[in-house]
Amino acid sequence: MAQYKIPVLPGDGIGPEIITEGKKVIDAAGEKFGFDVDWIEYPQGADHYLETGELISEDTLKELSAYDAIYLGSIGDDRIAPGVLEKGILLAARFYFDQYINLRPIKLLEGVWCPLKDKTPADIDFTVVRENTEDFYIGIGGRAKTGVSKDVLEVSRTLYSARFGLDIETDSEEIAYQIGMISKEGTQRVIDYSFDLAEKSDKHVSSVDKANVLSDIYGFWREEFNTIAAKHPDVKTDFNYVDAITMWFVKNPEWFDIVVTPNMFGDIITDLGAMVQGGLGLAPGGNINPNGTSMFEPIHGSAPKYKGQNKVNPIATIWAGSMLIEQLGEKEAADAIVSAIEKNILEAKVQTYDMGGSNTTTDVGSDIARILLEM
Amino acid sequence: MAQYKIPVLPGDGIGPEIITEGKKVIDAAGEKFGFDVDWIEYPQGADHYLETGELISEDTLKELSAYDAIYLGSIGDDRIAPGVLEKGILLAARFYFDQYINLRPIKLLEGVWCPLKDKTPADIDFTVVRENTEDFYIGIGGRAKTGVSKDVLEVSRTLYSARFGLDIETDSEEIAYQIGMISKEGTQRVIDYSFDLAEKSDKHVSSVDKANVLSDIYGFWREEFNTIAAKHPDVKTDFNYVDAITMWFVKNPEWFDIVVTPNMFGDIITDLGAMVQGGLGLAPGGNINPNGTSMFEPIHGSAPKYKGQNKVNPIATIWAGSMLIEQLGEKEAADAIVSAIEKNILEAKVQTYDMGGSNTTTDVGSDIARILLEM
Ligand SMILES: CC(C)[C@H](C(=O)O)[C@@H](O)C(=O)O
Ligand SMILES: CC(C)[C@H](C(=O)O)[C@@H](O)C(=O)O
Repeated sequence: MAQYKIPVLPGDGIGPEIITEGKKVIDAAGEKFGFDVDWIEYPQGADHYLETGELISEDTLKELSAYDAIYLGSIGDDRIAPGVLEKGILLAARFYFDQYINLRPIKLLEGVWCPLKDKTPADIDFTVVRENTEDFYIGIGGRAKTGVSKDVLEVSRTLYSARFGLDIETDSEEIAYQIGMISKEGTQRVIDYSFDLAEKSDKHVSSVDKANVLSDIYGFWREEFNTIAAKHPDVKTDFNYVDAITMWFVKNPEWFDIVVTPNMFGDIITDLGAMVQGGLGLAPGGNINPNGTSMFEPIHGSAPKYKGQNKVNPIATIWAGSMLIEQLGEKEAADAIVSAIEKNILEAKVQTYDMGGSNTTTDVGSDIARILLEM
Repeated sequence: MAQYKIPVLPGDGIGPEIITEGKKVIDAAGEKFGFDVDWIEYPQGADHYLETGELISEDTLKELSAYDAIYLGSIGDDRIAPGVLEKGILLAARFYFDQYINLRPIKLLEGVWCPLKDKTPADIDFTVVRENTEDFYIGIGGRAKTGVSKDVLEVSRTLYSARFGLDIETDSEEIAYQIGMISKEGTQRVIDYSFDLAEKSDKHVSSVDKANVLSDIYGFWREEFNTIAAKHPDVKTDFNYVDAITMWFVKNPEWFDIVVTPNMFGDIITDLGAMVQGGLGLAPGGNINPNGTSMFEPIHGSAPKYKGQNKVNPIATIWAGSMLIEQLGEKEAADAIVSAIEKNILEAKVQTYDMGGSNTTTDVGSDIARILLEM
């Protein structure tokens, strides 16, 4: 019998509740398909940080790098300033393990309420491949009174204002700035991945950028995309400005197969995608390093106001669990989990409040495990 | 009789067709409400650029700065690389005239088809106040082989990777970077404007940022927002991460009154807003400098494939025209134009293809002008 060790970080807020159900369903899948999971619990999150000062230490990350896949609940707590936990744990892990693919299926399951008129499960079924280690997520920025602001505005002056002789008074005011960076290698590997996906399934690839305004960074992205596209003459492609793609996700989601996007735009459009597929309670994601340690999580946050209420929908987490065991090679079991989720939804007997039901998080996890075992 | 001189830049693609209808309706409003408009045509756009090499010259901008408001069609042409015309004309004007407010009403008119289930005109009625002269629109960025990349990555290393002793090989690969900048003054004036709007109408203000990741630039934005909010204890406020707000625009648009946002996020969420209010054919915008030269335009682009077909919806442009004459002080006439648009839509007899009709651009403009004169 196959034996897996899977590290699990339940995290903050509702994290522990949803992860409990995720483990329950994977354990059931193991029972049915003949593998056994040894869960290794990690305490990182708000409480642990407040008690010990540790976000996630290098030792912990080194330890975790021995595994193929990590199961993550959710990170974030109102007691701590925005960004501290997110950057200190979630992004630290994505960067440390070089999880350069953030894979987010946008799929409206049969029986799920969609907020869009006239759209059916056949219309909403695509995959967003989000770059996950570069762009505006690199954490470089700062504030300045005169020094940097003068330098920065000097360049700006060349581009816009000074062309017209405007006088920008930089000395008198404070500024804040942020830098985004993408590398050739980092851009190529995520675009390559999206074309590989497309080749496998005879799909087309849509690229997202804002090359008409952030021309330096996304002009580069577009060039790399074109170079790779030229090597795949059989794969159809198109470009979408990020502003416009938010419209198409609502108007023509059926257009999309594979969408490849820089990090920050990917963050934005996958939340919209989650809504279109029925809500955050149903949207899973995988942070993938194909040759290293990957990490699977629901794309929703820690929802502090629901903490401890056994109320929220565990389906996103259970679905992320299916992606996790697929990554470990248990494809059949992974597919069975998705089928069990679909059956739970179609039966519409055991559902959380967001789907119109009145059952608990635990009820839904148990129901999906039961269905799986009875399949 | 009041006499206005209004410069008009029809621009590219469908620009000339829609602007013709916009002028027609403003002329009709003048006839009814007792003012006369002298239209001053400017040729800037793709053809002019290809013929003369001029995007928009300093002389032209100086000349335009004598006026209170400019009427703009749309800019953009497939023959020219992405960004050249947009930055060289549209953004150049926004920056030159320091039009620091981009005002975008998101309002579902009675009788318009909404892509969202269960939402009515009462649910979709809010205003986005987009900062319009800073952020990632300042046009600073570049490429580097080693020099800059090393500097940039040095900082990055401090923040993420190096904490964990990763070795980033920067020498071997090319990178591209982009810098965004916001100033205290630039941030305060747009947030002030949004609170003034809220005070006038007893509304609440929602701020948009991504302070949990782009913490330097948007942490600063959030601080300024908090400082200004403290001066308006009567105005309710909330924060929205940009990813999350795309969900709320679909799920709970009724929540929003006034949304204030940095430039780039404003670009993205107002396209989504346009879709939610029935499509780009219905979404107007104003680039406003309250003490200088403002500029009004539909928020859609130049739609090259429809050029010369007399097919697209002129309503966004006509609505932008209403905003323009309101800015000139003709409030009554401005309201009448919106009423005439509403009546045209409710009658549903003369409509372009995007609204399910089969009439031309010209037909719709003429119909709205007729309704206005008969009101
Ligand atoms: C919590 C936050 C740092 C994170 C992100 O911005 O990537 C989240 O929104 C996501 O999409 O996984
Ligand atoms: C055309 C483009 C430069 C512009 C922008 O990004 O601001 C447009 O999308 C808009 O929203 O007015």
